[in-house]
Amino acid sequence: MVGGRAPIRTLTILCVSKLTDVPKRILIGRALRSDRLGETLLPKRIALPVFASDPLSSVAYAPGEVLLVLSIAGVSAYHFSPWIAVAVVVLMFTVVASYRQNVREYPSGGGDYEVATTNLGPKAGLTVASALLVDYVLTVAVSISSGIENLGSAVPFVVEHKVLCAVAVIVLLTLMNLRGVKESGKLFAIPTYVFVAGVFIMIAWGAFRGLVLDDTMRAPTADYEIKPEHQGLAGFALVFLLLRAFSSGCAALTGVEAISNGVPAFRKPKSKNAATTLALMGGLAVTMFCGIIALAMITKVRMAEVPGKDLFHNGVPLGSDYVQNPVISQVAEAVFGHGSFLFMILAAATALVLFLAANTAYNGFPLLGSILAQDRYLPRQLHTRGDRLAFSNGIVLLAGAAALLVVIYGADSTRLIQLYIVGVFVSFTLSQIGMVRHWNRHLAKEKDPNKRRHMIRSRAINTFGAFFTGLVLVVVLVTKFTHGAWVALLGMCIFYATMTAIRRHYDRVAEEIAAPETPNDDSVRPSRVHSIVLVSKIHRPTLRALAYAKLMRSHTLEALSINVDPAETKALKEEWERRGITVPLKVLDSPYREITRPIIEYVKNLRRESPRDVVSVIIPEYVVGHWYEHLLHNQSALRLKGRLLFTPGVMVTSVPYQLDSSEAAKKRARRRSEWNAPGAVRRGPVEKPRRAKEQNKKETSRKG
Amino acid sequence: MVGGRAPIRTLTILCVSKLTDVPKRILIGRALRSDRLGETLLPKRIALPVFASDPLSSVAYAPGEVLLVLSIAGVSAYHFSPWIAVAVVVLMFTVVASYRQNVREYPSGGGDYEVATTNLGPKAGLTVASALLVDYVLTVAVSISSGIENLGSAVPFVVEHKVLCAVAVIVLLTLMNLRGVKESGKLFAIPTYVFVAGVFIMIAWGAFRGLVLDDTMRAPTADYEIKPEHQGLAGFALVFLLLRAFSSGCAALTGVEAISNGVPAFRKPKSKNAATTLALMGGLAVTMFCGIIALAMITKVRMAEVPGKDLFHNGVPLGSDYVQNPVISQVAEAVFGHGSFLFMILAAATALVLFLAANTAYNGFPLLGSILAQDRYLPRQLHTRGDRLAFSNGIVLLAGAAALLVVIYGADSTRLIQLYIVGVFVSFTLSQIGMVRHWNRHLAKEKDPNKRRHMIRSRAINTFGAFFTGLVLVVVLVTKFTHGAWVALLGMCIFYATMTAIRRHYDRVAEEIAAPETPNDDSVRPSRVHSIVLVSKIHRPTLRALAYAKLMRSHTLEALSINVDPAETKALKEEWERRGITVPLKVLDSPYREITRPIIEYVKNLRRESPRDVVSVIIPEYVVGHWYEHLLHNQSALRLKGRLLFTPGVMVTSVPYQLDSSEAAKKRARRRSEWNAPGAVRRGPVEKPRRAKEQNKKETSRKG
Repeated sequence: MVGGRAPIRTLTILCVSKLTDVPKRILIGRALRSDRLGETLLPKRIALPVFASDPLSSVAYAPGEVLLVLSIAGVSAYHFSPWIAVAVVVLMFTVVASYRQNVREYPSGGGDYEVATTNLGPKAGLTVASALLVDYVLTVAVSISSGIENLGSAVPFVVEHKVLCAVAVIVLLTLMNLRGVKESGKLFAIPTYVFVAGVFIMIAWGAFRGLVLDDTMRAPTADYEIKPEHQGLAGFALVFLLLRAFSSGCAALTGVEAISNGVPAFRKPKSKNAATTLALMGGLAVTMFCGIIALAMITKVRMAEVPGKDLFHNGVPLGSDYVQNPVISQVAEAVFGHGSFLFMILAAATALVLFLAANTAYNGFPLLGSILAQDRYLPRQLHTRGDRLAFSNGIVLLAGAAALLVVIYGADSTRLIQLYIVGVFVSFTLSQIGMVRHWNRHLAKEKDPNKRRHMIRSRAINTFGAFFTGLVLVVVLVTKFTHGAWVALLGMCIFYATMTAIRRHYDRVAEEIAAPETPNDDSVRPSRVHSIVLVSKIHRPTLRALAYAKLMRSHTLEALSINVDPAETKALKEEWERRGITVPLKVLDSPYREITRPIIEYVKNLRRESPRDVVSVIIPEYVVGHWYEHLLHNQSALRLKGRLLFTPGVMVTSVPYQLDSSEAAKKRARRRSEWNAPGAVRRGPVEKPRRAKEQNKKETSRKG
Repeated sequence: MVGGRAPIRTLTILCVSKLTDVPKRILIGRALRSDRLGETLLPKRIALPVFASDPLSSVAYAPGEVLLVLSIAGVSAYHFSPWIAVAVVVLMFTVVASYRQNVREYPSGGGDYEVATTNLGPKAGLTVASALLVDYVLTVAVSISSGIENLGSAVPFVVEHKVLCAVAVIVLLTLMNLRGVKESGKLFAIPTYVFVAGVFIMIAWGAFRGLVLDDTMRAPTADYEIKPEHQGLAGFALVFLLLRAFSSGCAALTGVEAISNGVPAFRKPKSKNAATTLALMGGLAVTMFCGIIALAMITKVRMAEVPGKDLFHNGVPLGSDYVQNPVISQVAEAVFGHGSFLFMILAAATALVLFLAANTAYNGFPLLGSILAQDRYLPRQLHTRGDRLAFSNGIVLLAGAAALLVVIYGADSTRLIQLYIVGVFVSFTLSQIGMVRHWNRHLAKEKDPNKRRHMIRSRAINTFGAFFTGLVLVVVLVTKFTHGAWVALLGMCIFYATMTAIRRHYDRVAEEIAAPETPNDDSVRPSRVHSIVLVSKIHRPTLRALAYAKLMRSHTLEALSINVDPAETKALKEEWERRGITVPLKVLDSPYREITRPIIEYVKNLRRESPRDVVSVIIPEYVVGHWYEHLLHNQSALRLKGRLLFTPGVMVTSVPYQLDSSEAAKKRARRRSEWNAPGAVRRGPVEKPRRAKEQNKKETSRKG
């Protein structure tokens, strides 16, 4: 598809060590072969689960959150829940409709960040980026906590050791992503479709039992009474509570923007397929959300914010030992029966989808990071793929922050959700405002009335989207600020400040190193090269370095040795003469057995004598295979190199000598280069502009 | 004194950061100026405190240990203590007499390790080295624990938080040595002489009060009764107990060997001065030891192994809250009066001398390490001075092991002493056996009857020394093995095994890289150099790298860029042409935005096409000042360099470009190079053989 690959790509099968193999196989099956999914684009049926596991999985906790907040005003407030569901549905349709515009107009995968940057300027873009980064952290924390709670409804042990299990899942996902497990379509497709199918079967079977068979289905909590924290709320307080419930329900919308970042990974026509997938996702999500709320009402699910205190059974509070199961599992229990096969399957699929949603953040984080790196808000090396170290830092940062939140909030998804959504809606709102600006700009230039009509329609959608999401953002901020939203805002500020500082640094450096237009103003032009080969003993590495140095035909060439041990120096000189090595050997004294300082001083002196000369220091270097071997070799060379770099007019050359043991490290390095960066699938291959490609070919043929 | 210094030595004043300045000033005064003590050799009056703070300070705990062990058989056993003191004195004289031979015959500073290696072979030498390394760890642990106990007799808070304070002192000493505080003569002289003077005043004043004034001086514990753990010990059991008490008393001998490692630091005549200092030290130590034991008997000091259980006051056990003060402080209290000025001074001086003794180990450890490194038992870089990193590892290892012991043994000097001494006497015994061999070898060649007589006398001394110290070693092993000596033996084995493994590695590598005698058997000789300058953008670093590369006159030269971003690549090419850069630019495609892999493949291809060519990869490198800046630059270059080193037939050249911020790092590096390696004072400057020096001068003049 894309011409001019790097020459000969060795498709080695991923070398997975035995140790980490087992959990991976358990979690993701055998689909590990390096089938280079990155080279195959995603069809809609695969793209849907890959990108939508996050928003779809959020129906596992969003309905429950709505009921939880309503319960503050007592069970009677539950009858507001359909209205809240309607509001969420309207919001979902608005957001999906808006984002269908986004993916059509900005298909490059830059998502909200690109839209905001292009239309509202870099500050808005950076705000969006900060919001999304925080959002990724929270996606991990919330999804895993909720997954643990869902798994706990089937396996009580898990919920009894909630924090421990949640942290264990974070660690597992982190290790998987550090080792470079590639997202695979199958991996996402199976649990996601099982989950979706399970929820739909549940809704259908529930409707059938309720409406046709006229069964009474009762949730396990149906008999409990709720002691309202505020009796008979009315007026402003009631509105505030409803708005809070709505804010919580908006958790169902998280992850919608993922598709807009993943357009390049879709099959052609990319934008159209992405837009269709968005619509599909929205449809599925609202149906599931409403279905679960409806079933919860029918089966009389009772939930409370502080279940041990506010839930009563026969007038007795349930006590702090009581574990409140998620709505979805309570409903499943009512519909399918406790411990039934379908109940277990649904619980497992729910947990799995939630963990996959968390994994989505592990992929989205570096993806966004690479885009930010391109704009120099993050270290450059994040931009290129396969830099394991750079990605690792990002992954560890993400996991560390998520684990911290999980521990602080006791892996309680309800408390974590208070922090969530702020970031999402900041990004939604700014992106939609950006789209409005986008249309305004285009409308100013467009003359074709047909296209204008289309644009005006799109602008209307985005305007409504901007207005609605902005309103929700305000509602979320107002209703949740003290409940934890401030933590998310603080996180955003930290990201924003860090990225601004990095960008400022890069700008300063770029200015400093900018090439002058007139080539001659760069002080004195170098005229001659004085080469120095550092010698400690005569052995193969030294001989090789000498041979290479002679080839370089520098203006002068000498060997330099430091006299640390007089006996050794004497032996060196004798052997030098005996072998008839033609390069002159110079010996520097070092009464304090230092190596670095005499060499640095010598080089500085050379430069002082003839400032226009360049000094080339050639260092024979051992290449060993293990880190502990590294401790035993090259340490002086390393230190010396570090110091030489600060000396102006010097070039430092390493002539490596590969010891036998270096084979081990070579293999390790090769394996590392086969590493799959997280987010590779979502990013899709690089698309090259036609012109550059052609020019490139010309260039290559001319030179090659 | 030593000719041919490194050219121009900048004597920058040590830049000590504000933060760590305060504790240092408190602990060691202002004597920090970089007055290059290493260049001035030590007169006897300074050498004595520098080398003898360890053995002299051990009289602070050795007498108490004797009483402690005797107390097992009840207070009646205390009357054996003078006899034990006599045995310790005889042993001390033997050891001092023996070591006076050592310093005369082996003045190079190799100490026991050198004597054992030369005369008994490398395995014996390595055993001695292992023993000494363990000994250093224990010196730190025991001295600091004892110092804390002595300080605690004046400042109760300290002894109430014993472990914490001991670890704090270890951390402080470690930081001081990591930063490179130089041992200074004054630093050692003042507290050591105050301590010695204090003890002598105490003995004299005690004798005066006791014999002339006929005062009754009573230690604070004089009224306590001891409940013997074994009533009426007799026969073998009693002998065993006395031997154990003697073993504990032998703690007074630790550190005697330090002088034999420090001969090069003495003023000339080095050996004679060292021998005199040894005699002085021995004389002072035994006088103080006997004086303290005598005063303890007169003032009726009562000590027990488990004071809370075995000490009674009016028939009631003292209970676990009772803190047993060291003998020296109890005696001082009896002689000077509790809380008196002299009492406080002596307590402070004792603690300080003990901490200095611990610091001695921080200096001796790297000193021994450097000798071992010379023989390739430890990483090479320990041999050269000023390698901060190498020394740091050693210091941290020493401190970590000592802190571990302190924590495990609750900073209880009595329990730690059980581990001590084994190492010392292993080293004593092997060294003395080695000396006997030494004399045998020399006697076989020597004809002069005068010299022969002298040698025979020396051999007799060393033979007696070997016999006596060997006997003590057996006694110590037998009486203390189960009390903890096994831990010390285990430590020795670990050091021995590690050093053997390192030596084996170096030997294997040396064999692998040994230069062949016939110069032509090293596969294919290189014929041409193909130079590649890596380019990402046109800026000053790139231009500099291109200019330098052109100077090198390699056979072919091209610039290489990786197409990660088509737009950037296009801009690069346009600017390349616009500027009329004569070096041809080659662009490699990288559909996955990798950098390393395409370059490695390209280089490998070049090598495949013409295997006799050498590829020179020239990388423009930014030099920045702070570690966080480093994260933002050069990461791709670093990774690439790492991979290229594994590719045969490649040389990797860095062309550094110093950014403005690199000034900070430059200063830091310079400061680091001014760093004083611990042990520098003890080691003395390198002595060069006459011949090598002359040859050197000739060489330098010929080339220079």
